[in-house]
Amino acid sequence: MKRIYVVGIGPGDRKYLTGAAARVLEECQVIVGYTAYVDLLKADYPEKIFLTTPMKQETERCRMAFEEAAKGMETAMVCSGDSGIYGMAGLMYQIGQEYPEVDLIIVPGITAASAGAAVLGAPLMHDFAVISLSDLLTPWEKIEKRLIAAAMADFVICLYNPSSRKRADYLERACDLILQYKSSDTVCGLVRNIGRMGETYEILPLGEMRNKKVDMFTTVYIGNRETREIGGKMITPRGYRNV
Amino acid sequence: MKRIYVVGIGPGDRKYLTGAAARVLEECQVIVGYTAYVDLLKADYPEKIFLTTPMKQETERCRMAFEEAAKGMETAMVCSGDSGIYGMAGLMYQIGQEYPEVDLIIVPGITAASAGAAVLGAPLMHDFAVISLSDLLTPWEKIEKRLIAAAMADFVICLYNPSSRKRADYLERACDLILQYKSSDTVCGLVRNIGRMGETYEILPLGEMRNKKVDMFTTVYIGNRETREIGGKMITPRGYRNV
Repeated sequence: MKRIYVVGIGPGDRKYLTGAAARVLEECQVIVGYTAYVDLLKADYPEKIFLTTPMKQETERCRMAFEEAAKGMETAMVCSGDSGIYGMAGLMYQIGQEYPEVDLIIVPGITAASAGAAVLGAPLMHDFAVISLSDLLTPWEKIEKRLIAAAMADFVICLYNPSSRKRADYLERACDLILQYKSSDTVCGLVRNIGRMGETYEILPLGEMRNKKVDMFTTVYIGNRETREIGGKMITPRGYRNV
Repeated sequence: MKRIYVVGIGPGDRKYLTGAAARVLEECQVIVGYTAYVDLLKADYPEKIFLTTPMKQETERCRMAFEEAAKGMETAMVCSGDSGIYGMAGLMYQIGQEYPEVDLIIVPGITAASAGAAVLGAPLMHDFAVISLSDLLTPWEKIEKRLIAAAMADFVICLYNPSSRKRADYLERACDLILQYKSSDTVCGLVRNIGRMGETYEILPLGEMRNKKVDMFTTVYIGNRETREIGGKMITPRGYRNV
């Protein structure tokens, strides 16, 4: 059987690679991915064939992987974070309909929400919503609706892609919507360059988060009503007694 | 410096252990955790000291870990899935206020949402909400409010702890709330025993999910308006063109 592994390599550093993902990378012949992520792997696997496409050429990247697998090559499509959370797994299944002879195996990875939470402390101890602020593939109105619903129901909110050059004010717009339902002193956090050189974090109230300049390598966390700062960390308690 | 590592070991099988988590388990002297999870590790690390408490004795479990670390033992508190998602990280920070000389280091793991999604296909390609149906530590009214908000805003919804002996009808109640806003043919999925022996999955419409008998080892996924079944898998498309 011909197959492609769609592998989440975690954010940044290889320390977050799972055993299952490491084994796939060792055993496959061809590694396909976004240029920047694949470059991180080249030094570790010098004997592999690497194929890349830049951003916004995701469908081409998927076809490239299927063409390799169709030739009989053991192929891995790599994604940063989890291949199954805003990753390539979905598009691979869609394009895979053109290649019925190729099986897909999804190998999960540590997503930014998990890795960033570990840096901040414990913000995701309770129900949470993950929302991408990128309107490249989603109408902004839909994103607004989700921000409002998540804020109304007091979810902890984790924002992916909070900003980019073309969307410099999106985090501010998102915070303003959330501020209609959450107090301006809601404990928030942000993590830059998760698992990479230059990893930093900051804990700050929602009223200040709206004025933060962030980039696309930042993940943003907005607490729920119970979230608080303990010893410089962002903690969402879960309601245990005797604490 | 005295320290405790709070380590997510992923769901089930050790294949989901990250390199960072494996290293902590190898290097620590004492492993503390919930009886059932620690039992999975005993065979792999026969030379360690294992300390456990049963369910509902989480605060005692945390204090046990801090006492070991305070004695100078290299200590790991292990959690199934991600230590930072409904895990022990939060409670450890809370109890840690009593042990200011002990540092906490959170090591993330693959959470059930990620691992289960990989089994089902690609349900989490778009904004999603994670909600636990356990009302042990959360009032049911709050859970209801979150279910409704997530359904209204067309999030993909991932349900943790969908049922237990005492809460046999909770999934039905949750589905009925969601059915007020999502169509009964919304594509849903469930995964049992993720990463363990006996792992199974099923894809079914929301109208049928409400009648499913599930147990506490099941994770439930409710799609958004675009989620569909492709080749027996649950896929949420992300809006790429030319597909």
